[in-house]
Amino acid sequence: MSKHAIFAWPARVYFQDTDAGGVVYHSNYVNFMERARTEWLRTFGYSNAGMMQELGVVFVVRSMKLDYLKPAILDDLLSVTAQVIAIGRSSITVVQTVLRGETLLTEAEVYLVCVDVKTFKPVRVPDVLRKQWD
Amino acid sequence: MSKHAIFAWPARVYFQDTDAGGVVYHSNYVNFMERARTEWLRTFGYSNAGMMQELGVVFVVRSMKLDYLKPAILDDLLSVTAQVIAIGRSSITVVQTVLRGETLLTEAEVYLVCVDVKTFKPVRVPDVLRKQWD
Amino acid sequence: MSKHAIFAWPARVYFQDTDAGGVVYHSNYVNFMERARTEWLRTFGYSNAGMMQELGVVFVVRSMKLDYLKPAILDDLLSVTAQVIAIGRSSITVVQTVLRGETLLTEAEVYLVCVDVKTFKPVRVPDVLRKQWD
Amino acid sequence: MSKHAIFAWPARVYFQDTDAGGVVYHSNYVNFMERARTEWLRTFGYSNAGMMQELGVVFVVRSMKLDYLKPAILDDLLSVTAQVIAIGRSSITVVQTVLRGETLLTEAEVYLVCVDVKTFKPVRVPDVLRKQWD
Repeated sequence: MSKHAIFAWPARVYFQDTDAGGVVYHSNYVNFMERARTEWLRTFGYSNAGMMQELGVVFVVRSMKLDYLKPAILDDLLSVTAQVIAIGRSSITVVQTVLRGETLLTEAEVYLVCVDVKTFKPVRVPDVLRKQWD
Repeated sequence: MSKHAIFAWPARVYFQDTDAGGVVYHSNYVNFMERARTEWLRTFGYSNAGMMQELGVVFVVRSMKLDYLKPAILDDLLSVTAQVIAIGRSSITVVQTVLRGETLLTEAEVYLVCVDVKTFKPVRVPDVLRKQWD
Repeated sequence: MSKHAIFAWPARVYFQDTDAGGVVYHSNYVNFMERARTEWLRTFGYSNAGMMQELGVVFVVRSMKLDYLKPAILDDLLSVTAQVIAIGRSSITVVQTVLRGETLLTEAEVYLVCVDVKTFKPVRVPDVLRKQWD
Repeated sequence: MSKHAIFAWPARVYFQDTDAGGVVYHSNYVNFMERARTEWLRTFGYSNAGMMQELGVVFVVRSMKLDYLKPAILDDLLSVTAQVIAIGRSSITVVQTVLRGETLLTEAEVYLVCVDVKTFKPVRVPDVLRKQWD
């Protein structure tokens, strides 16, 4: 999968995702995005626990920029995407979107740092993952 | 589908579902159960909004009994079930379980009341749903 | 504090607590109740971490029965109570309510088991806590 | 209160706020920030519902930039701040921080748009609020 490849994962909107404004509560898009990143990692053969045990690393969100363009509502079937746009020594930058059909609802740029599971110090992104995105 | 039929819906455990104890946080099983009830309703042809608009009713949780038997952990793929065990004039009683493979983790009995979307007064469970469960 | 003493802790209803039905989402009352139990434990001199480190135990929810009587809505200032009604060797039963002024909105009976933080096996409720409730 | 004034609101970290990594889950800081913005609005005399009814407007998050510097953990008592740094015709830009004592854990810039509660079209920030921040 090249860095231009876009992974997509579905998310249905339930009552638990909405608020009294009748729309999806703004922090819940961040949850949808974690789900998509996890499932995307899984396509490379790694669960969260597996990556921690086998590679000794975990990705933590260091910063995040979110643009809320249009609201999602109850019962919507959303598509949540993830795409690497940059890889550093110990970081990756991922663009994520939330779409309803062709309509872009939310867009985010998520900067993740690869850290050692024991020391929480930044470490080099493992080659086994790096080669997926180069 | 008779009242003995059991509907099942998958739920993957993400970081967002867990707590610092390393397991799924206890209120999040309630969220998994709402997802399963909604998808089960969908198999009868009704979204939440569709039921409100077409039938003028919504089901609200009036009481709930939960038994936590074993914990679910990060990355688990759970199966969340729903099965009607009793139908009253304006209520249904649903048994729901959360399973990991064959292992029962959580069991709940959820008592739902069918209310008018405008008045929130209890109303008769619509025949179109009632016949699914009789 | 005798077992008849009732502890109360406030909870304001924010958008994050509500759903598209315009009321507090049903699993969020469970969260309000955890907050009250934690602050009540704190009145006995124990944080969650403190109890784990000093006493080597943690209380886990083993079962829970919830009755939803009336809905809470956006901006409500709620009072969330906790009161021990029974103590076993390794368990406590706590009644919790959610009130708006004098009006009872939700009532719960929560059965908690005291477990060893390392083995997760049930252990005797420490005397230092037991004497608070006897 | 001038635009340089900083409002602060406390948030205790409960199990519900944490994840299996042992720290506060990253989307939950967004929830802490909504709580602080709501309480800050309340110091100007407006509840969410009150502002919608009396002024006919609501503020919606249009974009958000978050920096996660250090993690918060179970039992932490956090201070969540809000400070207006810019006011446009129909928008305000708010800087929010999450602190533990003097230590900055998370910093955010939140861009909110003032919309009509009926049409959801951007409208001028009401003078009664504007004068609080000028």
